[in-house]
Amino acid sequence: MIPDSNKKPISELRFDLVSKNWVVIATGRAKRPEEFAKQERVKIEVLEKDCPFCNLSTQGKPLLEYKNEQGQTEVIVVPNKYPAFSFSDSLHERAEGPYSLMDGVGFHEVVITSDHKKSLAELSLAQIRKVIDAYHERYLELANEKFINYVSIFHNHGREAGASLVHPHSQIIAIPIIDPDLQGSLNGSRLFFDNQGECVHCKMIEWDMEDKRRIIFENKNFVVLTPFASRAAFEIRIYPKEHHPYFERIKDIEKDQLAQALQEALKRIFKGLNDPAYNFFLHTAPADGKDYGHYHWHFEILPKTSIWAGFEMGTGIEISTVEPEAAAKYLREIE
Amino acid sequence: MIPDSNKKPISELRFDLVSKNWVVIATGRAKRPEEFAKQERVKIEVLEKDCPFCNLSTQGKPLLEYKNEQGQTEVIVVPNKYPAFSFSDSLHERAEGPYSLMDGVGFHEVVITSDHKKSLAELSLAQIRKVIDAYHERYLELANEKFINYVSIFHNHGREAGASLVHPHSQIIAIPIIDPDLQGSLNGSRLFFDNQGECVHCKMIEWDMEDKRRIIFENKNFVVLTPFASRAAFEIRIYPKEHHPYFERIKDIEKDQLAQALQEALKRIFKGLNDPAYNFFLHTAPADGKDYGHYHWHFEILPKTSIWAGFEMGTGIEISTVEPEAAAKYLREIE
Repeated sequence: MIPDSNKKPISELRFDLVSKNWVVIATGRAKRPEEFAKQERVKIEVLEKDCPFCNLSTQGKPLLEYKNEQGQTEVIVVPNKYPAFSFSDSLHERAEGPYSLMDGVGFHEVVITSDHKKSLAELSLAQIRKVIDAYHERYLELANEKFINYVSIFHNHGREAGASLVHPHSQIIAIPIIDPDLQGSLNGSRLFFDNQGECVHCKMIEWDMEDKRRIIFENKNFVVLTPFASRAAFEIRIYPKEHHPYFERIKDIEKDQLAQALQEALKRIFKGLNDPAYNFFLHTAPADGKDYGHYHWHFEILPKTSIWAGFEMGTGIEISTVEPEAAAKYLREIE
Repeated sequence: MIPDSNKKPISELRFDLVSKNWVVIATGRAKRPEEFAKQERVKIEVLEKDCPFCNLSTQGKPLLEYKNEQGQTEVIVVPNKYPAFSFSDSLHERAEGPYSLMDGVGFHEVVITSDHKKSLAELSLAQIRKVIDAYHERYLELANEKFINYVSIFHNHGREAGASLVHPHSQIIAIPIIDPDLQGSLNGSRLFFDNQGECVHCKMIEWDMEDKRRIIFENKNFVVLTPFASRAAFEIRIYPKEHHPYFERIKDIEKDQLAQALQEALKRIFKGLNDPAYNFFLHTAPADGKDYGHYHWHFEILPKTSIWAGFEMGTGIEISTVEPEAAAKYLREIE
């Protein structure tokens, strides 16, 4: 009989160096990556004629529009018709007994690609590059607005990931606060920098590029990997290889490389996992004018491969049923 | 024309005094509480004969069993057949380059009520009291185990809330770390105590009981309310009215009152929101033997009324489409 202490543990608790969170990686009951391709998808069928994003005259005045060489619109940015935040020339903060609150002042925009059916993973490199351009352009505009301290750029794909419309679109929300997730990461990043004199993300990327087990793809400027402390099965991050705190300072030539990295990441989960629902978002230094030289901007892609339940809601600890090393190997080998 | 600054803002950012998180309460596009009753529910049909919890011989040896006066099993606790953590007589911690990890050592148990179809909301007060007894009994047992620093007790109801089996059950997970959500709350609670000399939860409860707008129900020992900074529509918390850091020190007579408070909370969302999916969990002081005199244990109930999407995943800011005051009024008036 094998004594307990020699058995492979059923799971591992991995520590996130930046957020200081723990995640659980199920090793004993790990699923094979192929299994995720077989999960059922909730399909939303909406015809072009009923789609608000195919009928842009129903939306507000475009804030930005990129056309292709034939003069057809490829990417358009409009204000969200049902915003979570809205512009105001004043920002009221107040107390209610022990509590405090402020008006939801900000901006909420939608970045729409023209094809009703083709998700980002299916677009050409040139089209994805235009989406990156739109993110960048609107970021620069919104970051300079009064009261705005953070600009959140994100994309929901699929019903299970919270997309309410089938027509592919990203969202940009500019808010007067620095959100708690980013604040946690900024604190962790600053602490590491103060203690070790280097960027925690650079340190991890350097190790991972040597270790290779979690690398999915790399080009000149970017690396696509599964993080050591993955929050979910097939979580992917896209990092600039060099230390860059501020997304808004990205160079033109780097945007080509970012478009390729994003395309490679999305194509591989589209093909390898049979078009799963996912969210992706940008994490970058705040727009509050303070110094965040210790930070390192990146994109996080979180396929929706499971539902958050009581344990996750109550503890903030997420359980991933695939080892990041197995996920990276699987996605790396997708052609 | 009304100038912008006089318009009611479309949303409010409310600050959580304990976790230091922000939540967004949509005021401008708030939904009416009745609307949630009309949402579609994903139904899982499993017959008793195929249900593992109706065929307890397929499960492990019971850890605990409560019978009614007729000798029929009402509540039973068994080890989870697919645990996320498992027992070991050693706890290995190690480093991998800049990273650190440890074995997933712990316990994972299931608290099963005997009726296949009746959810907690539909049980008698005596039956719910037995569930509370089971939580308490197993808590005391697990908190004393080697390596265990926190015992998480939670319940998932409905597919959308992550319940994989239709047969009602709660779960208990005992882990070697203090989870990040609770750690954040402990930090916030300690800071408030050090600065103000009192418990932040007591302060909020006192204000809310005077204010009355967020109170759903109260009895001698417990108050059921919607928190000022609700993370989701119809979030509910159950607090002991008096300052109690440690759930495990609950008295017998208080357990009757807690069972009633939990029943009232679950019955009201069952009736008022047409049996929505929900998660609930216990937050209590850790079991690591340190002093948490500043903390105040409570249950949190989170109905699954929306899907977390890119904004929530990327920022940690949750958007609630119902004002907690409107939610409490609605649930208060349910008979």
